[in-house]
Amino acid sequence: MEALTAQRTYAKLVGLSQHTRALTSVSQLLEWDQETYMPPGAIEARAIQHKVLAGVIHKEKTGRPFKEALCSLIDLETGSIIASGLHEQQRRALYWWRHDYLRDKALPIRFVEELSQLSSQAINIWRIARKKSDFTLFAPILERIVDYCRRKADLIGYKDHPYDALVDEFEPEMTTKELMLLFDEMGSAIQSLVKAIRATAPVDDSFLHNSFLEKKLLSFSHLLLETIGYDFSKGRLDLSTHPFSTSMHPTDSRVTTRIGKHGLMNCLSATLHEGGHSLYEMGLPLEGWGTPLGSSVSLGIHESQSRWWETYIGLSRPFWEYFFPLLQDYFPEFNNISLEAFYRAINKVEPSFIRVEADEVTYPLHILLRFTIERQLIEGSIKVSEVPDMWNSLMQELLGITPVNDAQGCLQDIHWSMGAFGYFPTYALGNMYAGQLFKAFTNHHLNWAERLAKGECNFIRDWLHQHIFRYGRQFASHSLIELATKQPCSAGFYIAYLHKKYSAIYPLHYHA
Amino acid sequence: MEALTAQRTYAKLVGLSQHTRALTSVSQLLEWDQETYMPPGAIEARAIQHKVLAGVIHKEKTGRPFKEALCSLIDLETGSIIASGLHEQQRRALYWWRHDYLRDKALPIRFVEELSQLSSQAINIWRIARKKSDFTLFAPILERIVDYCRRKADLIGYKDHPYDALVDEFEPEMTTKELMLLFDEMGSAIQSLVKAIRATAPVDDSFLHNSFLEKKLLSFSHLLLETIGYDFSKGRLDLSTHPFSTSMHPTDSRVTTRIGKHGLMNCLSATLHEGGHSLYEMGLPLEGWGTPLGSSVSLGIHESQSRWWETYIGLSRPFWEYFFPLLQDYFPEFNNISLEAFYRAINKVEPSFIRVEADEVTYPLHILLRFTIERQLIEGSIKVSEVPDMWNSLMQELLGITPVNDAQGCLQDIHWSMGAFGYFPTYALGNMYAGQLFKAFTNHHLNWAERLAKGECNFIRDWLHQHIFRYGRQFASHSLIELATKQPCSAGFYIAYLHKKYSAIYPLHYHA
Repeated sequence: MEALTAQRTYAKLVGLSQHTRALTSVSQLLEWDQETYMPPGAIEARAIQHKVLAGVIHKEKTGRPFKEALCSLIDLETGSIIASGLHEQQRRALYWWRHDYLRDKALPIRFVEELSQLSSQAINIWRIARKKSDFTLFAPILERIVDYCRRKADLIGYKDHPYDALVDEFEPEMTTKELMLLFDEMGSAIQSLVKAIRATAPVDDSFLHNSFLEKKLLSFSHLLLETIGYDFSKGRLDLSTHPFSTSMHPTDSRVTTRIGKHGLMNCLSATLHEGGHSLYEMGLPLEGWGTPLGSSVSLGIHESQSRWWETYIGLSRPFWEYFFPLLQDYFPEFNNISLEAFYRAINKVEPSFIRVEADEVTYPLHILLRFTIERQLIEGSIKVSEVPDMWNSLMQELLGITPVNDAQGCLQDIHWSMGAFGYFPTYALGNMYAGQLFKAFTNHHLNWAERLAKGECNFIRDWLHQHIFRYGRQFASHSLIELATKQPCSAGFYIAYLHKKYSAIYPLHYHA
Repeated sequence: MEALTAQRTYAKLVGLSQHTRALTSVSQLLEWDQETYMPPGAIEARAIQHKVLAGVIHKEKTGRPFKEALCSLIDLETGSIIASGLHEQQRRALYWWRHDYLRDKALPIRFVEELSQLSSQAINIWRIARKKSDFTLFAPILERIVDYCRRKADLIGYKDHPYDALVDEFEPEMTTKELMLLFDEMGSAIQSLVKAIRATAPVDDSFLHNSFLEKKLLSFSHLLLETIGYDFSKGRLDLSTHPFSTSMHPTDSRVTTRIGKHGLMNCLSATLHEGGHSLYEMGLPLEGWGTPLGSSVSLGIHESQSRWWETYIGLSRPFWEYFFPLLQDYFPEFNNISLEAFYRAINKVEPSFIRVEADEVTYPLHILLRFTIERQLIEGSIKVSEVPDMWNSLMQELLGITPVNDAQGCLQDIHWSMGAFGYFPTYALGNMYAGQLFKAFTNHHLNWAERLAKGECNFIRDWLHQHIFRYGRQFASHSLIELATKQPCSAGFYIAYLHKKYSAIYPLHYHA
């Protein structure tokens, strides 16, 4: 195809893609509203809205106009660019449009709807099963979900392992093989670290678990977000049961946090975590909105941004050198606590049963456990009925504790009932990517701690913008991390970071 | 068509209609969010979402599947039902589906988009013109809007008057001729009443215009809504600059109110007004959602429901016999005001320039003024440039006052910049319908005042449900009012109500 025609067709593709993106952004508003302000009685009406919109979106994504424009620019089968005169970035966008198109097209709308219905039922059953802590209630429908996910993998196709096809939805181009290597490296190193920490005297963090005024927590959350560079003219902070962030557009990127009956950090950490997700979305190229050039890379990269602000920055000492005196202004009950005691408390490491409450160090072990189980479920080497025993023995092996029941164990997460097999690993990848990025960042900004301790945060966000945000989705996660850090992707940086940080907090008799 | 096939086709039509309704309900959420919680920076992104969704909706409404199902049940040209074995209600639904389809189909998507774009520009220009109080800034684009509206009337078609085609969008089957008769009757009677009231001593309402705490006003608004039967599990109350209500579904029907710097009733009246709209929507038949059988009749009938609660009930003495002591609990500053003084103050009649601030008596004259001008603009008997003079002289004639500038006069309302010619009359129709309904209601419930004074409201809502809500959109507004009241539709009831109520408040030397 001639260069001029190619540019015209490319522009058409952008228009179609943005049209679809506008519709998905609307379905995001349906979700945001559902979790924040929707009247409880509207739940069934909301389900209808979701379903109808999802149908319209799927139709557009796999419809003829999009396919025709795409096909005339890139060979769907081989992936080679047919059109001439396209810029490098446009070629990269085509690469991802094709990737997603083939994926969407592989799943018949009938299959997608069936899985979505099955998953709605499964979520309800899971809630009951978790409440009664009875895995046998959940097992039959989980078997059907696993079966659907295996069929999904077959429909999408894969080279080595059916799990590859599922992971690809959340972390494009990541493979099971690579995940196993990374988790192996991470798992044993972290297990040793946890063991060494457990041999030390327990840290007192009781003062974090008092009850704090909702209004003050929200107001302090606002302060945190503003300081790290969150733009409230393009976003907002609300409350929801489960914190989340959703970005309809770089100019409309919202976060929520939670306020429990007790606890300071379960609110503030959630604020920083979701703020991190949102800063990423706010920093994506505006002009690329609705195309791969204005999209995020993967859930793993997204999680690297949230964990960056939640843990690497938000649980660091310089961060609290600046914020702790402000916290004391808001909450005078901290006046008789030292910064040192506060810092040790927020970084307390202690094996626990519930993933979402896990500390920075034990967290990846929770993911390793789930990864091990779901990979084997998908490859068919274990049965659904074996899950509870396997869960409990892995929990003992990795964390040295055994759940007293399934609610505390294999029934704690919603993901499997949603059919989201392949999602969990991205949580660990996020920590790992962030570790590698943080190393590169601190190498570049040797005085980062001094600046952060003065409340400076813009230079941090600028560095992320420079190395992550501005690329949109031009590269797969591995390539992007390598481009940003000039190092091959590895779990080593993350492990070294954990070792260094926690050796300074705990008197460890331990060699990494 | 055979009865069994007819039922199947009818069911298909219902499905398509509900599909489209689900999408329009989503666009309502976009609007609700925009007026309540959307970050200000998202305004352009929101416009994209609106536009994309509107396109999808128009396509569905006028698409082939809907047309084919409709055509096989009803003759589009003559309106006669082709299919056999349909129930009476189904036949009525088909009547309105055809009505709306012909209307939607008459306007090419290109025309709709152009008018919508023109209107966006016009709204911006109108805001500037109003700010500068300079009609000449607004005149050129208003001329284009009027031109488009006349073309719209031609595209839709009409028998007697082009304005008929425009009114029909908001008040189906109402004609210009009928409106002129109603307004004639209303206009002169109300003018005499206003004149008589102006001859009496002025009422002191200064204590209503103090500053009141936002939190307390909101909390009292909640109490009002709960008492009149608003179900907070299926709706919510928020704040917005301009109060509105929006109903996505009978289980998700939301209202907003406003809180200005000063003033009690501009908040509480808005709450009751929007609550009235919302009670109507919450009371529509659930099973008819997304079809004419679960829809509201017209803007006029809608307005009858909002004015019912805002004025007929909410400005009545028995209502405040119950609520005034509660109000005094919330706002101790009313402790030295008598119920009588309060009742007179909230019913103070005084000609004023701004429609949305007008009292119950002068309000319809504001509408008569607009109706007179816009009707003549559409029939081409006056020019846009003549609007300011005509406005001012009509204002003098009807209300005895003359605006000092155009911001106070012909630039005060947003409607014309939105292209909403034909909308204004529904505001007056609402008052009139409510008057006729109220007469029937008080005839039926002779002890209504005693019951209301005890805080009973359910019997009122039940009466409205019995006579209005449960019919959905089976009948046009006139037929519904006649069915509910067993009397021909007339402005007489409304005029008699005003006369009776205000003769008791003011010492009038006056004979209606």
